Amino acid sequence: MSAISALQAARAAYQPKLPTVFANGAAVNIIEGDATTAAADLDQIQALFPETYGAPKVNFEANMNKTTTAINVAVILSGGQAPGGHNVIAGIFDGIISLNADSKLYGFLGGPGGAVDNKYMEIDSAIMDAYRNTGGFDIIGSGRTKLEETAQFDQVITNCKALNIGALVIIGGDDSNTNGCVLAEYCKAQNSGILVIGAPKTIDGDLKNEDIEASFGFDTACKVYSELIGNISRDACSARKYWHFIKVMGRSASHIALECGLQTRANVTLVSEEVEAKAMTLGGIVADIADKAVKRAAKGEHFGIVVIPEGVIEFIPQMKVLIAELNDLLAHDASLSDSLPIAADVDQLQSHGLSAESASVYLSMPANIRQQLVMDRDPHGNVQVSRIETEKLIASMVEMYMEENHADIHFSEQHHFFGYEGRCAAPSNFDADYCYSLGYTAAALIGAGKTACLASVKNLKSPASEWVAGGIPLTSMMNVERRHGADKPVIKKALVELDGAPFKELVANRDEWALHSNYVFPGPIQYFGPTEVCDQPTITLTLEQR
Amino acid sequence: MSAISALQAARAAYQPKLPTVFANGAAVNIIEGDATTAAADLDQIQALFPETYGAPKVNFEANMNKTTTAINVAVILSGGQAPGGHNVIAGIFDGIISLNADSKLYGFLGGPGGAVDNKYMEIDSAIMDAYRNTGGFDIIGSGRTKLEETAQFDQVITNCKALNIGALVIIGGDDSNTNGCVLAEYCKAQNSGILVIGAPKTIDGDLKNEDIEASFGFDTACKVYSELIGNISRDACSARKYWHFIKVMGRSASHIALECGLQTRANVTLVSEEVEAKAMTLGGIVADIADKAVKRAAKGEHFGIVVIPEGVIEFIPQMKVLIAELNDLLAHDASLSDSLPIAADVDQLQSHGLSAESASVYLSMPANIRQQLVMDRDPHGNVQVSRIETEKLIASMVEMYMEENHADIHFSEQHHFFGYEGRCAAPSNFDADYCYSLGYTAAALIGAGKTACLASVKNLKSPASEWVAGGIPLTSMMNVERRHGADKPVIKKALVELDGAPFKELVANRDEWALHSNYVFPGPIQYFGPTEVCDQPTITLTLEQR
Repeated sequence: MSAISALQAARAAYQPKLPTVFANGAAVNIIEGDATTAAADLDQIQALFPETYGAPKVNFEANMNKTTTAINVAVILSGGQAPGGHNVIAGIFDGIISLNADSKLYGFLGGPGGAVDNKYMEIDSAIMDAYRNTGGFDIIGSGRTKLEETAQFDQVITNCKALNIGALVIIGGDDSNTNGCVLAEYCKAQNSGILVIGAPKTIDGDLKNEDIEASFGFDTACKVYSELIGNISRDACSARKYWHFIKVMGRSASHIALECGLQTRANVTLVSEEVEAKAMTLGGIVADIADKAVKRAAKGEHFGIVVIPEGVIEFIPQMKVLIAELNDLLAHDASLSDSLPIAADVDQLQSHGLSAESASVYLSMPANIRQQLVMDRDPHGNVQVSRIETEKLIASMVEMYMEENHADIHFSEQHHFFGYEGRCAAPSNFDADYCYSLGYTAAALIGAGKTACLASVKNLKSPASEWVAGGIPLTSMMNVERRHGADKPVIKKALVELDGAPFKELVANRDEWALHSNYVFPGPIQYFGPTEVCDQPTITLTLEQR
Repeated sequence: MSAISALQAARAAYQPKLPTVFANGAAVNIIEGDATTAAADLDQIQALFPETYGAPKVNFEANMNKTTTAINVAVILSGGQAPGGHNVIAGIFDGIISLNADSKLYGFLGGPGGAVDNKYMEIDSAIMDAYRNTGGFDIIGSGRTKLEETAQFDQVITNCKALNIGALVIIGGDDSNTNGCVLAEYCKAQNSGILVIGAPKTIDGDLKNEDIEASFGFDTACKVYSELIGNISRDACSARKYWHFIKVMGRSASHIALECGLQTRANVTLVSEEVEAKAMTLGGIVADIADKAVKRAAKGEHFGIVVIPEGVIEFIPQMKVLIAELNDLLAHDASLSDSLPIAADVDQLQSHGLSAESASVYLSMPANIRQQLVMDRDPHGNVQVSRIETEKLIASMVEMYMEENHADIHFSEQHHFFGYEGRCAAPSNFDADYCYSLGYTAAALIGAGKTACLASVKNLKSPASEWVAGGIPLTSMMNVERRHGADKPVIKKALVELDGAPFKELVANRDEWALHSNYVFPGPIQYFGPTEVCDQPTITLTLEQR
């Protein structure tokens, strides 16, 4: 037996597709667009980024006669894993070698912290080849250290200079790229000569705007989750006796749940942004699912599929109030939670200040969730919202509702949570190509001397040869938000837009999908088959770019 | 958007591969082998099956000149879903049409109960084509009604005669095929003219012997679970901070856990059969995993993968005793569990007769599992062993052990259970081909007038053209076992053999796999690529048939 699987071996040989502009390498002329501003709070952003603010967006024009001196580049993986990270690195590697064969690629180990602590490795072609088209971030590891302090920046500059590193590529989400921009600004102000380029990573899909059509990893992760949801749907309509409640990743945005709902035509797809906009209640959500269960049962279909975004609880206004009140009263009296009986006495909570409305919400939940809310708190005494098993909560509340209101109707639930299953999957052809192109784009931006840019590859609904590569100034995506009591420049998170095409597609179909078992079974990601099977982007991207 | 996925559309066109003997259809001459006996208890089995006992195993020789009158056949899906069931039906359909174009295929709906209640549909070519190479059992549904009573048999015969059905194919596991044989015996004794043929289905892989190299569905299910375990392994060695405890299906045999462990090279793979043979204790299993965590932590690897078979708890001798004692004392005093505090008072249990040894095992478990053991009982008052979340139990016990004995070592757990994700996956090429061949074989056996046989397709390690099709008398696989206080003929369940090649492969490698992160990432099932990626059988089958 070999130490890699047959699929790994076959995929190692895959040559990712690139935009035509890179047909002869990453050497390009820059075509400048109009000067940019910011997403909002223009003056504040300009004041914070005097060196890098207002630069134009750029596109490329191939220039294979261009010569570039050898450049040492370092790459950093920041935050949670997303499929395709290794291909971004492969794109940078091949890109800088195409600029000059003596260029070198370093990787800082274990995330941004590695750049501060000077933990690094050189990525040579043997190492690179072992990771092409693979999932995971294990080539150099990732980490969550934030680069925010001047002392950190100075250390990074010192470490880079020791290795003669002229450019840093930070592969990360909105926060990491915001910090990358602060670092780029600092590097420029210090005349360090170090460029900083970003690559848009997050499976959650919430780093997205007019110039960044998708963050990488979203495509693959959604396809893995949809494969599993499809398999479970097939089981549901074979066994005909279970409602499956399936939670998928997405704490602050519901792009994954929405995409999976569209791919599989689940009976119910919750979208946190809609829950918040309509101020839905927990009881209302439960009653609505139960109503669909009753209608389906009338047709003899005692089964169904509900897709739930991880963060939905925090978008229910009454839950926010309850959690805030609990945090307040438990913080006020740290000994209170110890004195509460396991199924937490609501009278006692009310006597300590819980409002009547929150008490009612609290009482509507099953005992084990109540217990978790009160007992399971973080070191600051706060309720650990992220640890609430939302899929169990909603499933058991629907079951309770059915028992109380429709005891004659068979209703039985199963619940699932998919997270780790998709974060490190080997990238789909789309993500393999997109990530490689992003890496190549980063190399081209470096070759052109650009900094404080996010690598951008657009026109993703078309074949890769027609993709358009370029760079977008990071400041152009920023606004100022209040975080932990201070004004901070941040890249605006892209939530699901309720007037956007993907959500409208759900709305247009969801009544029919709720009632009928129109499931689509996407099946496993394919790499070698017909292009309509192997190379299609997500439904979200297709609808948004239509 | 289409109502089927791009992959579904592409797979609908897939023509499953068949053994060469069927190159011109299912018309065959029978080549008889030696007469058979039984797996054990020969006299009792012969007495129970006077009509069908002792028949020879048969192989086929193509005979395309043979003419067969049209025959109506009915098919039944029995028990849990397994990938490829629809292809068995497609094989029967195409096979009986190849025998005579006027043959008809009926499906009894919702499992064996449909044959008693006369719920059926005709499967015509339009319906059949919509289900080729798809997962699930939804074409006619499945069910768990057992055909055991003479009254049921009479009703089945009446219903079959009304439709002029000359043969029944029961697609099921060991129990369903045992009952199928009893029905075959009855049909023959009654001179009903109705033949009964079985097809070996179960993802658990425990319907297996010298003539049945694999039950269908095992290949696909293991590949889906291994895809997910591989993805999680990649995440583990990227994030470097979690031990993942992953439970997979397999209540009575650990074939799935073993196969997944071999495919992914997990750090620890538990095998229930070994746990029982070595009389391992829960504490011993926990300490052993913790020992591996300590050794890996010394190398800086604070992560790992543990694969756990669903049924392992019931194979731990001390747990069996504990559960038996709890069943006994809770049954003796039904009010006891109500009076127990939630974290169940062990003194109170001991005062009611719990042994000191069981009390010690009981106390070693986390409070939530103790609670479940005592409070969550079936209508007969028995502990619901199958509902114990074994992956959580073992994960939290290892965590507790690490806190108590190695508080200085970072250890953090995640747990997962994969069951529904694989049962209804679209069949791998192997299962698509194998199932279609099994169905075709069933048609050939029917054409040759055989009954009380299990369809057999052998030499599965070779390309499908070299597969050998035939029929094995069901009685030859039976022995007598005590079930619910009565002697019953049953097909012997194939457990993992501790001197078999697959388990030996694990043993030969597990020390190395435990210490090092030699994970293999199998990736998603592929249908269109190189043969070594798309058409390989399981490692279990490859090693067993080597």
